[in-house]
Formats: sequence, C-alpha cells, structure tokens
Amino acid sequence: MTDAKIRLYVDQPLGPGQSVPLTADQAHYLFAVMRLGKGAAVALFNGRDGEWRAEVIEAGKRGGILLCTAQMRPLQLPPDLWLLFAPIKKARTDFIVEKATEMGAARIQPVQTQHTNSERIRQDRLQAHAVEAAEQCGSTFVPEVAELVPLDRLLAAWPAERRILWCNESLLGARAALLSEGTRGPWAILVGPEGGFSEREKTRLAQMPQVTPVSLGPRILRADTAAVAALTLWQAVLGDWA
Amino acid sequence: MTDAKIRLYVDQPLGPGQSVPLTADQAHYLFAVMRLGKGAAVALFNGRDGEWRAEVIEAGKRGGILLCTAQMRPLQLPPDLWLLFAPIKKARTDFIVEKATEMGAARIQPVQTQHTNSERIRQDRLQAHAVEAAEQCGSTFVPEVAELVPLDRLLAAWPAERRILWCNESLLGARAALLSEGTRGPWAILVGPEGGFSEREKTRLAQMPQVTPVSLGPRILRADTAAVAALTLWQAVLGDWA
Repeated sequence: MTDAKIRLYVDQPLGPGQSVPLTADQAHYLFAVMRLGKGAAVALFNGRDGEWRAEVIEAGKRGGILLCTAQMRPLQLPPDLWLLFAPIKKARTDFIVEKATEMGAARIQPVQTQHTNSERIRQDRLQAHAVEAAEQCGSTFVPEVAELVPLDRLLAAWPAERRILWCNESLLGARAALLSEGTRGPWAILVGPEGGFSEREKTRLAQMPQVTPVSLGPRILRADTAAVAALTLWQAVLGDWA
Repeated sequence: MTDAKIRLYVDQPLGPGQSVPLTADQAHYLFAVMRLGKGAAVALFNGRDGEWRAEVIEAGKRGGILLCTAQMRPLQLPPDLWLLFAPIKKARTDFIVEKATEMGAARIQPVQTQHTNSERIRQDRLQAHAVEAAEQCGSTFVPEVAELVPLDRLLAAWPAERRILWCNESLLGARAALLSEGTRGPWAILVGPEGGFSEREKTRLAQMPQVTPVSLGPRILRADTAAVAALTLWQAVLGDWA
C-alpha cells in the first residue's frame, strides 16, 4: 500500500502534484502530536478523489504544506444506503454516526419523530465524528450527516424508488425477514427512538409500499444496537459485504 | 403483560409467594429515585426463574421487601453462543458487554491475545453492565462475564463440538461467508483486538477444524462494531432471531 502510517481527511482537492496547505489544527496534530517532519508520508483523502500518498514539504507550528505524490486508491463509494435515526443521548448519537460510517452508509439523516426527546443536534459535531470514523476505518468516502428533519415531512416527499427497511419494535420476537437479493437499488434504514414510533407513525409506515418491516430478535435493542444490526443485515445481502 | 414499569434484577430465588428482601441500593433506587410506595408493582428476574410480578410490601430508607405474586414469563435461555473478545478501552469494553447481552450471547469471555493492550479487566464491573443491559432489554437471562484468560490456553482446551466464527480482519473486502442453517449447535464468536491477531494466532486458528473465518466488509471495523455485526449475522441464521 503506502509507507504512510497516518490517514488524514482534508477539504482540498487531491491530484498529481497538488499541494495541500494544512490548517493550524492539522499541523499541530501531524507535527506536534505525531512528530512528523519534512519528507514524512501521510495518506490523504477528501471523500471525492480517492486516497493519496502525500509528503510533508513544509512543517510549521501553525501550518504546513503537503504535496500529493501518488494515488494509492480510487474513490470507493458505499452502496446507496441511508440511515435514518432519531437522535438519542449524546454519546449514543455520536456512536450511531461513527458506526454508520464504519458500516458503509452513504448518508446519515437524523429524524425527529413524535417520541424523539432531542429537538436539536449539533450537525457540525456529528459530521466531524463521521470524518474521524472514516479516517479510522480506511474509507475513502465520508457520509454526509444531514440536518435534523421531522420524519413526517421526510416521508411526505419520500422517493417512490427508495425502499425503507423499518426496524419495527412491535415485531419483537417475530422471525427476522431475510432480505432478498432481488431488491437491489436505493434503500434507507429507519431506526426509531427509545420510546418507539407513535401509532400514527406506525400506521403511516405500514401503508407505504416502499417499506419492509424487520424484526431484530426477541430482546429490545437500544437504538444504537438496532442501527448496527440492521446495517449488517442489509450489507450482508444487498450491500458491499456481499 | 404486567402493570410493573420497572424491571429489577435480584439474586434471590423467585417463586409463588416468595418474599424478596432488598439491598440498600435497590431500596434507594425503587423508593427514593423511582418513588414507588407500598403496593406498587415491580418486575423481577434473577436469570434463573423467569420474570415475576412482585409487590412492595415494605418500603424503607435502607431496605424493603417485595412479594412475588405471579410469574409473567418463564426463563428464556439464549442460544448456546459465546462471545470471545479482546478487551479494549474501558468505554468500548463496557459497550461490547452491553451489546452482547442485548444481542443474546449466552456467555461473554474476555481473552488476552498477543496484541491485547489491556492485561486486566474488572470482571465485577463488566458483570454489572451485563445485568443492567438485561434489565433494559427485557431478557430473563444474564450472560456470565468470565475472567480474562489467554487465548492460547482457551484454544488448547477447546471443545471439539463448539464451532468458532472468527472475525478475521485479514479477509477485509472478501465476500462475507454466509452461515448455513446446517451448522446449528454450540458456537463462539471471536473478535480480535485493535492491532489484529498475531501471525502465530492466525496460523493456529486457520488450522482448527472448528473455525469458520468471516469477512465483515471492505472497511476496517472497530472491535465493538465487529462484535455487534458478527452477532447479527449469527443470530439471523442460527440463533433466536431466525
């Protein structure tokens, strides 16, 4: 692969001979924390141009410059899978974003349901978690974490061709519906809040032709566990694990 | 079901007319935190006798007594699945124990591998996490969290009939081996430490006839994510989700 031990996400374009100026934070991390010096190699990705080997050509206290030397890997997009989830406690919401990135979701959409406690999210902080998870898991892509939207409004304009795998806690203990390879295409996974979906939401979801309800076993899973479990079921049959 | 809104794990035997003395901590939780009084209903389980409705008959500051009135559910054992994992950072180790309990592992076995950083675990603290997760997820069973043992020693005495689903990070990007329904019986899932397994460990595992290596997609999963994903794959085909 490459001699670079550190993977760094940057905003700038990456390409042959491209120089990449560093922010003060990035310079601090590379030169003070990780103690890299001139000539050291770093793996860069920006979510668009794949992964590049870059060399430190200037290292300063408040900045620095890297130079792209070779593309190590092309951009690899995840499957067209969204994760819709109702924000829960801070640590568990962070966790869901981290896990969705590792598991290969293409877009992370927080939704406000009738029983969602949290009415605000820090979108920028969650996006930073997705970047960090992408750095760690070796992905060349970073899913967008969208702004919180009401589930009602999202479903009112739901695209006809995008299926929804609905983690429906009312099915507790039912046989897990196995996904079929015949349903490839765009999908979303929908995980509810701790209080579950309201009766009105359940009625609405049950009537949508795009929706496949799924059971996740006989125990009540926390929302973060349910997200990872549903992503696994989907990825193993329809996604890039298959 | 029952009118009890609170589920509590207790050590004592549960049965018809059985009275259950509370510890000071349990009394504080029920009477001070949750503000229950005499006559209130609580759901009790002890991991052996199923779930019981019990009534508060004495409520004090440092103790109290509950009386079992009716069994609401019999004991439901999870499938015969162990989770073997190498302890990682404290919060993520706690998380693995919580998730393994929710997902229905029967036994949680921390293992010390050659690349495991942590040489000690607080077994009692982890067991308390399993109890808390069982209270939350509605399980009538609590998996034992065993003491940390070296992986080498565990494999040297490994039972011939217990299969191992080995989360092998060397298979990154390989097609996920789908488990077959023809392999029912005792299993264990083995998840490695952040540094992966050593060459010696990999050679040994590859030679064991009980071992099925499994790929978990093209991204590098953290150990806690890998544990939930592997438990999902197994439960959906061979476990009590199927």
